[in-house]
Amino acid sequence: MLGSLNIGLLGLGTVGGGVFQLLQQNSDVITQKLGRPLNICRILERNMDRVRQLGVDPGLVTSDPGIVLNDPDIDIIIEVIGGVELAREFILQALSNGKSVVTANKDLLALHGKELFEAAAAHNCDLFFEASVGGGIPIIRPLKESLAANRICQVMGIVNGTTNYILTKMSREGRDFDEVLKEAQELGYAESDPSSDIEGDDAARKMAILASIAFGSRVTYPEVYREGISRLSVQDIKYASNLGYAVKLLGIAREDEQGVEVRVHPALLPLEHPLAAVNDVFNAIFVEGDAVGDTMFYGRGAGAMPTASAIIGDVIEAARNRQHRDCIRSSCTCFYNKPLKPMGEVISKYYLRLIVADRPGVLAAIAGVFGARGVSIASVIQERTIGDLAELVLITHLVREQNLQDALKALADLPVVNEIASMIRVEGGPSN
Amino acid sequence: MLGSLNIGLLGLGTVGGGVFQLLQQNSDVITQKLGRPLNICRILERNMDRVRQLGVDPGLVTSDPGIVLNDPDIDIIIEVIGGVELAREFILQALSNGKSVVTANKDLLALHGKELFEAAAAHNCDLFFEASVGGGIPIIRPLKESLAANRICQVMGIVNGTTNYILTKMSREGRDFDEVLKEAQELGYAESDPSSDIEGDDAARKMAILASIAFGSRVTYPEVYREGISRLSVQDIKYASNLGYAVKLLGIAREDEQGVEVRVHPALLPLEHPLAAVNDVFNAIFVEGDAVGDTMFYGRGAGAMPTASAIIGDVIEAARNRQHRDCIRSSCTCFYNKPLKPMGEVISKYYLRLIVADRPGVLAAIAGVFGARGVSIASVIQERTIGDLAELVLITHLVREQNLQDALKALADLPVVNEIASMIRVEGGPSN
Repeated sequence: MLGSLNIGLLGLGTVGGGVFQLLQQNSDVITQKLGRPLNICRILERNMDRVRQLGVDPGLVTSDPGIVLNDPDIDIIIEVIGGVELAREFILQALSNGKSVVTANKDLLALHGKELFEAAAAHNCDLFFEASVGGGIPIIRPLKESLAANRICQVMGIVNGTTNYILTKMSREGRDFDEVLKEAQELGYAESDPSSDIEGDDAARKMAILASIAFGSRVTYPEVYREGISRLSVQDIKYASNLGYAVKLLGIAREDEQGVEVRVHPALLPLEHPLAAVNDVFNAIFVEGDAVGDTMFYGRGAGAMPTASAIIGDVIEAARNRQHRDCIRSSCTCFYNKPLKPMGEVISKYYLRLIVADRPGVLAAIAGVFGARGVSIASVIQERTIGDLAELVLITHLVREQNLQDALKALADLPVVNEIASMIRVEGGPSN
Repeated sequence: MLGSLNIGLLGLGTVGGGVFQLLQQNSDVITQKLGRPLNICRILERNMDRVRQLGVDPGLVTSDPGIVLNDPDIDIIIEVIGGVELAREFILQALSNGKSVVTANKDLLALHGKELFEAAAAHNCDLFFEASVGGGIPIIRPLKESLAANRICQVMGIVNGTTNYILTKMSREGRDFDEVLKEAQELGYAESDPSSDIEGDDAARKMAILASIAFGSRVTYPEVYREGISRLSVQDIKYASNLGYAVKLLGIAREDEQGVEVRVHPALLPLEHPLAAVNDVFNAIFVEGDAVGDTMFYGRGAGAMPTASAIIGDVIEAARNRQHRDCIRSSCTCFYNKPLKPMGEVISKYYLRLIVADRPGVLAAIAGVFGARGVSIASVIQERTIGDLAELVLITHLVREQNLQDALKALADLPVVNEIASMIRVEGGPSN
């Protein structure tokens, strides 16, 4: 058997600790499959309490990144410190030292992917990132390799566990957003500053990565349209449910003749859609290819051990490539430079909740405003009256977002319209 | 750019036609990703009507397998003729001629996998088979590679589209098996001789392949326990639904300290289990690993284009390996020789429907028989009375299959028991 392959681990936080534990726990099966042992020989970490808590040999640990990145015995660097600037420097240095890199860092990849993949190619080293999207779910490699013969038409994902947990609770228990968020924070499912999750930023980073692979054209995080879930009312979730829909924070990446669209926002999804049954902290990515049709990949989108599973899967592949002197077998696949569609050009259906005067002629006035802007209404329900006001729930047919936005502006100026209480896009139907 | 890589295609039936069409339709994206074109240069096929119908150049077509298998310009052979003996000969000859092989042939692999993988290793050629399980769903490579760091605890699959279509129809429309089967045959979802699908043989072959990979220990088709769906009554599907369960033809592969169990049979699955929502002709494979937790892979389990998607994905990987002179990067992973558990040792819960005398003391007699054999009852419902008979539906706690079978035998001898109408295993609960 070959001698062990040496790994440098940057970061011993939640994910780093998971990587350390998984390599110990399953060293027999991993060694068997790779044909040689994987050995963590250096660890970058400052928190010595954490080191002791995990039972890590303190002799492996350093607070000097150069000692890990420049060690000539190290073949593969695992980057799990997170953040953007330091991680970028460390990865670039590791690559320029001829080391392959495995990272879970979506923030970094969704901003600086191009620079990093070019550096990897220039130094003939692998840069793998399965753990950056969907935690333990195998999605990056299946999308790049198993589905390589397809033209991918769309990728729709529930790629943030925190928001999916909150929406599942709101839906099942009829409770408000603020209350459920607080509980999620107490249970450790949401951060004390939850904004990256609940405003859709985390999901937008993951969708930028998925879209870049799916369409072979780079999409960066700032280019992804995003809306979070903090303004969703439990009332809308109830009405949606009555109409046969679940409400999910959905990442959508789609390509048609007009270009590529990538967006993250709450959406109504028909209950019979496979993504509608994805609940709690689970993630799932729904991929539609021209040959394969509809596929879906489901699992735990976060957590120490699921993420470590994806990272070690990548390390085994990177180790195999080094063993066979065969890195960069399939490098960056962003061959094209496709135009991104402005949000106004997106085609969708819309769920609207309006508070209007409860008297004859109001619906005709509203329908007139919609009709003049090419918005066609598929259904209207008067849900309830509140004093002399009525609550209307409408669902439109497919329409250009800009037309819908124009109609909403005109609607707001109608004296009979008291409030446009909600606008939520409707996805996953047979026609979109 | 490198010159084209030459492929020999064995068989131009449904799947072979799909492969031919997909290589034409998406040649641009495939060439871009691989860095060279894929070119089908010889095809084995006798049916010249089929050749014309697909617009294939008749000059490529031969009825002599040797002309394809011995062509020195061919790098990769795609085997989609199906069947066992001829396919085995052809694949062995292709490998011994130094060609890599991509096949969708589950019947062959589930019987002769060992011989074929040994031949591939001996000749330093790849033998890929993603399309053999789950059609277009990426499952073989994710299981072997992405999840390589895990100990797999269990694989549960809905891996036969025909039976899933039939069960979905029976469940939704309350119609009988025979009637729905006839309709499925008319629609082309079931073969004119449907026995391989409905008796669970097709699913058993796929589960043998999945279990071999998951546990690193070879399982062959004859070793898989199987029961089909032809005796399922719509009555049981209704009762199951009332109790919160879907009825599916489930493949189950599980490992514990006692060994490996692999079985295919109808099963009650809690409605909240991700597999319970897999309907119509869709397939899904649920994989549980010690690190990753629960994952699921969903998609079309059959059809020309989905299967072609998996095949061309494999061809691209095999082509890359040949380009980098790097075949057999990860060869057969059956490192172990684990004992197979006899069916009597399997632990499950059971749904039972009994027709019994409708009088006091009957339940006590039945409970006595169960208790004496260690079978503990979780719930009993008297569904209806039929004359002086009552229909009882019971669900047991977890129990060894042999104990349950012994209890059923003793029950059949009780004068108060008129009929043991159904026995269906209950899976996917929190404790199994």
